[in-house]
Amino acid sequence: MSTAFASDNAAPAHPAALVALQQVNDGSAAAYGADEVTAHAADALRETFGCPDAEVLFTFTGTAANIIALASAVQPWQEILCSDIAHILVDEAGGPVRLSGAQLTRLPSSDGLIDPTALDRHAARRGPVHHSQPRIVSITQSTENGRVWPAPAMTQFVDHAHDLDLLVHVDGSRLANAVAALGVSPEEAIGDADIITVGGTKNGMLFGDALLVRTPRHFPGIRFVQKQIGHLASKNRFVAAQFLAFLRDDLWLRTATHANAQAAQLGAGFQRLGLRLACPVEANEVFVELDAETHRRLGEYYAVHQPDLEVPVVRFVCAWSTTDGEIDDVLNTLRGLL
Amino acid sequence: MSTAFASDNAAPAHPAALVALQQVNDGSAAAYGADEVTAHAADALRETFGCPDAEVLFTFTGTAANIIALASAVQPWQEILCSDIAHILVDEAGGPVRLSGAQLTRLPSSDGLIDPTALDRHAARRGPVHHSQPRIVSITQSTENGRVWPAPAMTQFVDHAHDLDLLVHVDGSRLANAVAALGVSPEEAIGDADIITVGGTKNGMLFGDALLVRTPRHFPGIRFVQKQIGHLASKNRFVAAQFLAFLRDDLWLRTATHANAQAAQLGAGFQRLGLRLACPVEANEVFVELDAETHRRLGEYYAVHQPDLEVPVVRFVCAWSTTDGEIDDVLNTLRGLL
Amino acid sequence: MSTAFASDNAAPAHPAALVALQQVNDGSAAAYGADEVTAHAADALRETFGCPDAEVLFTFTGTAANIIALASAVQPWQEILCSDIAHILVDEAGGPVRLSGAQLTRLPSSDGLIDPTALDRHAARRGPVHHSQPRIVSITQSTENGRVWPAPAMTQFVDHAHDLDLLVHVDGSRLANAVAALGVSPEEAIGDADIITVGGTKNGMLFGDALLVRTPRHFPGIRFVQKQIGHLASKNRFVAAQFLAFLRDDLWLRTATHANAQAAQLGAGFQRLGLRLACPVEANEVFVELDAETHRRLGEYYAVHQPDLEVPVVRFVCAWSTTDGEIDDVLNTLRGLL
Amino acid sequence: MSTAFASDNAAPAHPAALVALQQVNDGSAAAYGADEVTAHAADALRETFGCPDAEVLFTFTGTAANIIALASAVQPWQEILCSDIAHILVDEAGGPVRLSGAQLTRLPSSDGLIDPTALDRHAARRGPVHHSQPRIVSITQSTENGRVWPAPAMTQFVDHAHDLDLLVHVDGSRLANAVAALGVSPEEAIGDADIITVGGTKNGMLFGDALLVRTPRHFPGIRFVQKQIGHLASKNRFVAAQFLAFLRDDLWLRTATHANAQAAQLGAGFQRLGLRLACPVEANEVFVELDAETHRRLGEYYAVHQPDLEVPVVRFVCAWSTTDGEIDDVLNTLRGLL
Repeated sequence: MSTAFASDNAAPAHPAALVALQQVNDGSAAAYGADEVTAHAADALRETFGCPDAEVLFTFTGTAANIIALASAVQPWQEILCSDIAHILVDEAGGPVRLSGAQLTRLPSSDGLIDPTALDRHAARRGPVHHSQPRIVSITQSTENGRVWPAPAMTQFVDHAHDLDLLVHVDGSRLANAVAALGVSPEEAIGDADIITVGGTKNGMLFGDALLVRTPRHFPGIRFVQKQIGHLASKNRFVAAQFLAFLRDDLWLRTATHANAQAAQLGAGFQRLGLRLACPVEANEVFVELDAETHRRLGEYYAVHQPDLEVPVVRFVCAWSTTDGEIDDVLNTLRGLL
Repeated sequence: MSTAFASDNAAPAHPAALVALQQVNDGSAAAYGADEVTAHAADALRETFGCPDAEVLFTFTGTAANIIALASAVQPWQEILCSDIAHILVDEAGGPVRLSGAQLTRLPSSDGLIDPTALDRHAARRGPVHHSQPRIVSITQSTENGRVWPAPAMTQFVDHAHDLDLLVHVDGSRLANAVAALGVSPEEAIGDADIITVGGTKNGMLFGDALLVRTPRHFPGIRFVQKQIGHLASKNRFVAAQFLAFLRDDLWLRTATHANAQAAQLGAGFQRLGLRLACPVEANEVFVELDAETHRRLGEYYAVHQPDLEVPVVRFVCAWSTTDGEIDDVLNTLRGLL
Repeated sequence: MSTAFASDNAAPAHPAALVALQQVNDGSAAAYGADEVTAHAADALRETFGCPDAEVLFTFTGTAANIIALASAVQPWQEILCSDIAHILVDEAGGPVRLSGAQLTRLPSSDGLIDPTALDRHAARRGPVHHSQPRIVSITQSTENGRVWPAPAMTQFVDHAHDLDLLVHVDGSRLANAVAALGVSPEEAIGDADIITVGGTKNGMLFGDALLVRTPRHFPGIRFVQKQIGHLASKNRFVAAQFLAFLRDDLWLRTATHANAQAAQLGAGFQRLGLRLACPVEANEVFVELDAETHRRLGEYYAVHQPDLEVPVVRFVCAWSTTDGEIDDVLNTLRGLL
Repeated sequence: MSTAFASDNAAPAHPAALVALQQVNDGSAAAYGADEVTAHAADALRETFGCPDAEVLFTFTGTAANIIALASAVQPWQEILCSDIAHILVDEAGGPVRLSGAQLTRLPSSDGLIDPTALDRHAARRGPVHHSQPRIVSITQSTENGRVWPAPAMTQFVDHAHDLDLLVHVDGSRLANAVAALGVSPEEAIGDADIITVGGTKNGMLFGDALLVRTPRHFPGIRFVQKQIGHLASKNRFVAAQFLAFLRDDLWLRTATHANAQAAQLGAGFQRLGLRLACPVEANEVFVELDAETHRRLGEYYAVHQPDLEVPVVRFVCAWSTTDGEIDDVLNTLRGLL
């Protein structure tokens, strides 16, 4: 059974990541991120995102980056808002709630894109001691359904949240795909968000995500939280070196551009087969409607994922490594099943 | 300033670890540890420790392994016991307490070696609803002060804890050093402990520790806890492959044996300089008494660590990579300062 | 400004409660609920609800009873389900989440009445380590909108939840009003629910709620949780004595019957004024539609509550002490405002 | 078996408390502490302790007051310090740790009296991300062993803690006994402590303790925490009224003075029997050395408590209600057993 389209998590590491590991494995180095490679990688992230005063932390996984961001943003009597399909809501085993102790409230969305006015009602509940107090909203760029927040919509959302005295977290485990799709600067793709998970794993690294903390005063204990859950790497150069390699010469955007292009090609192929896409293909994910029997039979050949048990939709994810041949193969397989 | 003796954390990765990464980076693979490399590495750990029925989990760091073990062992009205110098008590930023919600109680120890009868008083407090209920005791092999539990002492301690209906966790971030020092089988070095952190990072990997869960019925939610704090690696083959490489041909014991030998040599060198060792050198750490002025001046050359602010003792840690030249250099530097 | 209809919380204590306090204040008694009054009150609760094997705990408040029940039911990687208007979701400041660490998920409801099939989708998500695992569903009898679960609907809901391997908690802070309204036995009003908050405060006591734990095996640490948050009363006879007084001769149902009757009368009065009720009056609460200006002006005379900021509905609650004169007064005031 | 000396918790309520309940049970009142009785009681507490700007909260129990104070003082990566016999350490079932998520570290003490310099070592560990960060120290006045902090010692301790940037909590569940014993003003008995649990239950109320928050800026979420664990009483006038009654005409000090005097008398009686006191009798508790057999046989007549399982010491607590006759009886019983 092929895992080719199971997830960008299932992809191999890009060769540049391995080369980078090799290059920094040179003698002993200060532990826990006090080394020079880490400093350079943090600088590279600050420069890429045009925020010279941001704090940068590295983690091993995107889930870790998300929960560190959220748990250091809130008190356990405050509230976290997110979309109804947010990874932090449905795919992190309740970690954000466990670690923060805070209530996590879902907002209605269109494939993860949230209307800014959905925040108003929650902000208005602030004050009385009987209610959790909204403090931060988390959005995903590109979203879990493969949609991309256009730069103006992102700006408008973040600004509206700030007007309501809400912090904004961007889960950017696929941020590269969004930046590549939008063709804007990395900065424009995240608006004035306070804290951003910058994904590395799904972009082609072996492992590693980063946190860009643009308003550090709102996350005073964040380095303690990182340490407390075992994401302060003692040999952090091995995370940082991969970021350095990917940010150099825009490798992170080239891998994403490829993944996006393959997804577009796959989506077009599905449509040629007469299949309906469940939502527009804007980044590197394709959601296609498949009847139960076809889905079942496809599962004999491919590890594909049904995001919601109630609707007959199947997800295909393209990665930096997805080849034209793999796309042809899955389309041929499907043609045989239909 | 040299980081040569700062910690086994500061050492580079062993070349075999990088080769292993390269070898498994071959096409896509099932995510989240469902891949074959992970299965083989788990088998290798079970075989090495002679426990065919154990569950095996991988994490990125030793802190993570420790807190996942502890947090899945207790309810938040139960108590965790440990030594007065335990890493989980003094060097994990309170992570074990935060994640478990359980009280963490220190027991007196001799360099981390605990008299089994120290458990009796705590076990006797069980019952009344007013007290935290002791559930698990965590010991470290080799200890934070570089001492090694002899196999009979380990057996006696674990058996006594079990008699008192306490689970036993072994923090084995330096377990290899203990096994190498004792010259016994890995199994003998851990007695019948219920759950063991098997260190990889300090043993020469880029990153990666494992949890050996020998009594899985006592840790029912452990895989959820692992996921909740971001230590279920999506590309887990890159952790597992390193364990496979290190367990093959006893590489993990050869690296540890070397580190232990270098520590012995360094300790002997200190004594020849007329310095007093604060405790016996039994594994890969050396604790030497240094007056404040010498310590200060040494700090201009070497990043060395004073474990306790009140006593003039300095820690030197040897790693798989510590060379004779490095030992000569630090001894010469010290000779110049004394 | 009158607080007559603000809440059954705002009502005075029934004289029988004060008499009961006086009667048991006789010399010293074993602390922490080991006294005889507590034993008798627990027996009285078991007898009233026909469950001789239930465990009984007393708490000072309903919020406490709810969070003790929920926090002892779940692990922090499990999920709690409740209605979209549940007190535990919107009016306990996030306490259930903070104490349990578990994700709290809202289900759609009709005024707090939940279709049993709404549980299916969540139960089906069980298994994968990525998702919180549903463990308990909490419903409210009578609901926060003053609706009553008919006995057959209650049975059907609880049985369906059990079929899905979900525990059931009943928040019965107004359980007396439901039993009185239904005219069934207390047992029939709660089906086979596992754990029930039996309200005292809103029923006319000075303070005090109870927990009826019918399946104690599912709540092993419940007495520790009670202690941990300061709800194990040292002088528990003063809670228990009130329950004894209220359960004797069905005082608890007589106070509830009165409150229900007054609510019915008030609701009929609103309708005679041409006002629309937002939902049927089935227990002791009345929800009436009022335009913003009338609501504002009414607020000069009465402390009344707008449950949701988006809809122009105002809540009136009747208590054991609500008089016909108070009802006439509020209706006259409103007539003057309309 | 008599509970006469089991605890001041086992004593009946003072008649004045019941009278106070009766007097305020007059019609409906604003819920959740927005009533006038609560406002008056808060004023009375502020006046009694000479801190006009303090915030006042009421809780049902002392454990609740303690954990609300501590949990709102710390982040879960900070540390709470306390004595080795502190109630929060050994008798609250781990509640302070569970609710705060913070590490609780015991300091050596003499019967609960702590040398201020014991704080220095912990404050010095601040900074590195590897360690829990000390934030607040909790002391008990009078201590769990019936000792009293003299006013100068209290001042010195609090000032030293403040110099080290530590907040100070005073667990004053028996604060009245300390004030009465010292013969100083209430203010002098607590120094410049930041937050004080003012005990009511052990002083003769049916239930009820208060929190005096003198530096509210350090406890920003305290009212949310109070609500979250069910200690925001809906009918709070019934807690507040008792405080009003006890603070009026110094009833709280008269009850404490009596209890202290009875303890002194009991201690003297023990000494006349040739028994040794384990520590000086300074407030309302007497700790006497009893051999195991005498203790066992005494337990047939009296519910007395052995605070530590390892030493043959038994605790006797006197209350506002302890009579000369009760003292004579227990001394006679003991004389018969010796």
